[in-house]
Amino acid sequence: MTSSQHLYIESDANPRLKRWRRLALEAKAVRREGATVLEGIHLLQTVLEHPEVKINAVMLPEGRTTAEAKALAERAAQTAGTRLYVLSDRLYDAISPVENGVGVMCEIALPAAPVPEKWAAADALYLDGVQDAGNVGTLIRTAAAAGVQVVVAGPGTAGLWTPRVLRAGMGAHFAVDLAEGISIEKFRVDYRGRLLAADARGGVNLFEAPDYTAAGPICWLMGAEGPGLSVKALELADERYWIPISRSVESLNVGAAAAVCLFDAARRRLTQRH
Amino acid sequence: MTSSQHLYIESDANPRLKRWRRLALEAKAVRREGATVLEGIHLLQTVLEHPEVKINAVMLPEGRTTAEAKALAERAAQTAGTRLYVLSDRLYDAISPVENGVGVMCEIALPAAPVPEKWAAADALYLDGVQDAGNVGTLIRTAAAAGVQVVVAGPGTAGLWTPRVLRAGMGAHFAVDLAEGISIEKFRVDYRGRLLAADARGGVNLFEAPDYTAAGPICWLMGAEGPGLSVKALELADERYWIPISRSVESLNVGAAAAVCLFDAARRRLTQRH
Repeated sequence: MTSSQHLYIESDANPRLKRWRRLALEAKAVRREGATVLEGIHLLQTVLEHPEVKINAVMLPEGRTTAEAKALAERAAQTAGTRLYVLSDRLYDAISPVENGVGVMCEIALPAAPVPEKWAAADALYLDGVQDAGNVGTLIRTAAAAGVQVVVAGPGTAGLWTPRVLRAGMGAHFAVDLAEGISIEKFRVDYRGRLLAADARGGVNLFEAPDYTAAGPICWLMGAEGPGLSVKALELADERYWIPISRSVESLNVGAAAAVCLFDAARRRLTQRH
Repeated sequence: MTSSQHLYIESDANPRLKRWRRLALEAKAVRREGATVLEGIHLLQTVLEHPEVKINAVMLPEGRTTAEAKALAERAAQTAGTRLYVLSDRLYDAISPVENGVGVMCEIALPAAPVPEKWAAADALYLDGVQDAGNVGTLIRTAAAAGVQVVVAGPGTAGLWTPRVLRAGMGAHFAVDLAEGISIEKFRVDYRGRLLAADARGGVNLFEAPDYTAAGPICWLMGAEGPGLSVKALELADERYWIPISRSVESLNVGAAAAVCLFDAARRRLTQRH
């Protein structure tokens, strides 16, 4: 490893360090700066598989890292033509978005949000005020796995590019298009497919419903834990479905409900083709 | 509210307080003491709907609580014939298993683990080393929602009755039978249904598989994030299924994978009846 590209940061007052701390902790900073930080070997590997993602900086802790993380960091810095910043372990922990991070981090520029034309006719998932970062990351991962191309988030949903959501997304952020801050009213105007509401309070039994995937693009609407979909989202939905659950529980976790709905659609599209 | 039943706890050294702190923080203490603590109005309401669950104590913070939480705590203490312990907010926070708890907690005795005869012929879910408490709680909730009667955990799975798992379970713990510390080898001997492995690495496409629910009870086996099912569990499984996911992601979150498998079985059982 050549050390010429390495830059040591040892002061709390370093402006780059302050920036990374803001990105790690403040959803608003991620939006304002158009950048985010991500931690871990798997996420960095995924970023390297997507050359369209711009890496702004690569960071390593001075002591607590592994040979694998170091080699990957070196490669990432070379590929991106950026510097490799080496931080004291204490400073690294202060900016790391996860506890017990494995010891490599990078700052990336947020990919440009897709224009509505890009998602208007694609299968999509709309998040209506889902606040929990872990749930939002899992929802993006599940959507990508189910072959959905676009995830759109309304106001009130956790910032899609915040480090905790990225962590839970396990790299799926780079497999789908992501748009956020789009109200359900605006989405209804721009989206050319059908909006399907998943509602724990009622609707057509999902498993007894006729094939809802045959007539073009669909977007599942998922609401927050507790309140579920907003009144507005329910009003604007074209169809409303209910997952048949045992009366012994009130509802499903939003991540589980989305998995059931998105893979019900995937199953229907798969078996329809035969 | 009569205050005669109230007992104020103001010292860190109070033995009850120490006990609750152990139960809140140590999975081993939950097993050893045969008791756990749960926090929040919803969980306490669920407990009250299950008179077979023994409430050992009810706890309130002195300041930071609500009229609703107070009334519920009073009712719970009366129903159970136990005392209502009022803690300084600082002490309450020190034992609360959740941050920003809503202000009511109770200690319950763990329900007796069901004998193998009880679950040997029921639809079940087996957790093979699922360590994340949030995932485990969500899995119990999803299983209950899908009509599965029993959740069995192998060694290495997060303690089912620990406060964080209870929190994520949202009351589902009281809707199913729970058994833990049962190795896959012992489970294979005792369980009389078929074991279905959910494996991200391969197997029969779940959505193209012939009906696997028609021939009696089934148990889905779910492995940990990352490693997936253990070699032993894969060996002992009767059948092995793969959820068809997009090549753009490596795998599903275990909670999402279980939702897909458990509700695929529920759908097949539902439509088979018609």
